[in-house]
Amino acid sequence: MAQSVQTVEIRAGRGYTVSIGPGLLGTCGEALAGTVGRCRMAVAADSTVAPLYLESVTESLYRAGFEPCAYVFPAGERSKNLRTLSELLEFMASRHLTRTDCVAALGGGVTGDLAGFAAGVYLRGVRFVQLPTTLLAAVDSSVGGKTAVDLEAGKNLAGVFLQPSAVLCDTDCLETLPPAAFADGAAEAVKTGVLAGEPLFSQLAGGIPEPEALPGIIARCVAFKGSVVEADEFDTGVRRTLNLGHTAAHAIEACSGYAVSHGRAVAMGTAIIARASEKLGWCAAPCAERITAALAKNGLPVRTEFSPERLARAAQSDKKRAGGEITLVIPEDIGRCALKTIPVGELEAVFAAGEER
Amino acid sequence: MAQSVQTVEIRAGRGYTVSIGPGLLGTCGEALAGTVGRCRMAVAADSTVAPLYLESVTESLYRAGFEPCAYVFPAGERSKNLRTLSELLEFMASRHLTRTDCVAALGGGVTGDLAGFAAGVYLRGVRFVQLPTTLLAAVDSSVGGKTAVDLEAGKNLAGVFLQPSAVLCDTDCLETLPPAAFADGAAEAVKTGVLAGEPLFSQLAGGIPEPEALPGIIARCVAFKGSVVEADEFDTGVRRTLNLGHTAAHAIEACSGYAVSHGRAVAMGTAIIARASEKLGWCAAPCAERITAALAKNGLPVRTEFSPERLARAAQSDKKRAGGEITLVIPEDIGRCALKTIPVGELEAVFAAGEER
Repeated sequence: MAQSVQTVEIRAGRGYTVSIGPGLLGTCGEALAGTVGRCRMAVAADSTVAPLYLESVTESLYRAGFEPCAYVFPAGERSKNLRTLSELLEFMASRHLTRTDCVAALGGGVTGDLAGFAAGVYLRGVRFVQLPTTLLAAVDSSVGGKTAVDLEAGKNLAGVFLQPSAVLCDTDCLETLPPAAFADGAAEAVKTGVLAGEPLFSQLAGGIPEPEALPGIIARCVAFKGSVVEADEFDTGVRRTLNLGHTAAHAIEACSGYAVSHGRAVAMGTAIIARASEKLGWCAAPCAERITAALAKNGLPVRTEFSPERLARAAQSDKKRAGGEITLVIPEDIGRCALKTIPVGELEAVFAAGEER
Repeated sequence: MAQSVQTVEIRAGRGYTVSIGPGLLGTCGEALAGTVGRCRMAVAADSTVAPLYLESVTESLYRAGFEPCAYVFPAGERSKNLRTLSELLEFMASRHLTRTDCVAALGGGVTGDLAGFAAGVYLRGVRFVQLPTTLLAAVDSSVGGKTAVDLEAGKNLAGVFLQPSAVLCDTDCLETLPPAAFADGAAEAVKTGVLAGEPLFSQLAGGIPEPEALPGIIARCVAFKGSVVEADEFDTGVRRTLNLGHTAAHAIEACSGYAVSHGRAVAMGTAIIARASEKLGWCAAPCAERITAALAKNGLPVRTEFSPERLARAAQSDKKRAGGEITLVIPEDIGRCALKTIPVGELEAVFAAGEER
């Protein structure tokens, strides 16, 4: 049975379309020829994704009249640094990419963040397209134009804002994801559900159901994120609510030496801030319980072994700090979150209030 | 005798003021407190400039209520790469700079390009100010918001557009510049004179005169560049005329392994394109002779030892390429330059036409 492709329009940057459906990678050349025009296309993929999809993507690009070239780097958050960025930029220069050429990010969040950053600074900016192959990239990181690499000092500390020219989300890729990788994406989906409210939250609360529901869930997450990004592309106001759970999450990732995946850390971080919010009287029960239950149903952890003191110390380098303050995202109810700015010194007490007892 | 400070307003980015006059470094704290507000300020300076001015700058910042910290790197174009950028970013993170903090570029073109790039990507962008200490930075690179580092493959191939929040040009610094460094700046000033026409060109044609004339010349160069940047901040049209002489210049720098300074290369490149333009019938005599004479009067070279073939090959990686074409800036007369797009394959013939015989 032929499944239809869902599309979501994002009115940020020059505006772009997110297409969600099966079989999109094998026909990406045709789709992109209409959007970015035939050009040289540097396809970045990690060592896990490249053997699975790179040939099909470059063949489709080639057939459609592009001149594709491929840059493959070792899979994992450890590659998301300035050294890999430097290699990718040198690769692009060695292939003589010019200002009218394009970068494609084929993969998950690391690949999108890295390749988008490279596109944003190569010749002071060329275009890029996102070809997300993980649920996390599909529901969250491929849309919105935040790109980054990690510094030694912390996660995502260097990057640019650059909206993609197109996002093609091939849902066939998601069916073969290992359960842990799928759960990573579910964490960002549940986070989005807490922000967006119904009907998305309920769709996710029992765990992501049969595969047929997936394109609809992704489209809902993308549409919600898109609406927030359209209102605040450069992250100075309402967009910061998308960081729900992320202050603790980034601290957990840093404390674990990035052994804890981003999705699992977001689950833990969201659970921590939900419990803290209830405990400190910022939201009413059973908000935290509903959130932690939804995370658990999606196979995600809701507690961390790191102490509030260690997490607070690790959060010192968080981007969300400004001067001596830090802005947290506080769930007030399912479908309603608020920004709350506190002195950095109070962070440990908030994390402590969010510990599971 | 007290000399007055000249100011030029640039309406690009959020708009900023370029102040030009004596003694500005020693009072930079007061001046910047009014512009960017008291904050943590990472001052980047190279190993030549740091011993001369860093203490005076950080003391002034400290007195005015800033929290300054200093990052010093080895002087020279060789430092303008992603490795130094990475070190500077880690330094900023280690000093816990946040989104409301600021970077100051204290030095010449390399420092401004590097520190501006760091500001543009740290936490996806913080503010920066330019404190130019060379004539080249004063008349050209500190204004306009182009930042960059070099890749192995070529010059300025990675960077961002980020307008500074303020430019303080202390003309006292220029009086102690070694003659070669002063001449480097004169090359960009003469280039600006060719673009802007009279009265600037004539002011420069006999060599830059007594020191008293310098602030006025700088202000004229900055005002002209500012008007071009205001019309085309992101370098898609008329701003590209500011690259007069730069296609050959970047090729010369690359061929020499960056042993030839940027200013001297710009002088050679401007002379080459002026002679080529006359030879190929794009401008009438004595345009080329007037330009080369002005360069020579400012102590600058007007020929290169590299063959047209080598230069054309080195220009393959030039940013100004798009697909198989490259856009050159052609002097048609003093005060009138045009963009001319040619196939990359014709570049060697143009460079050959520009050889001095």
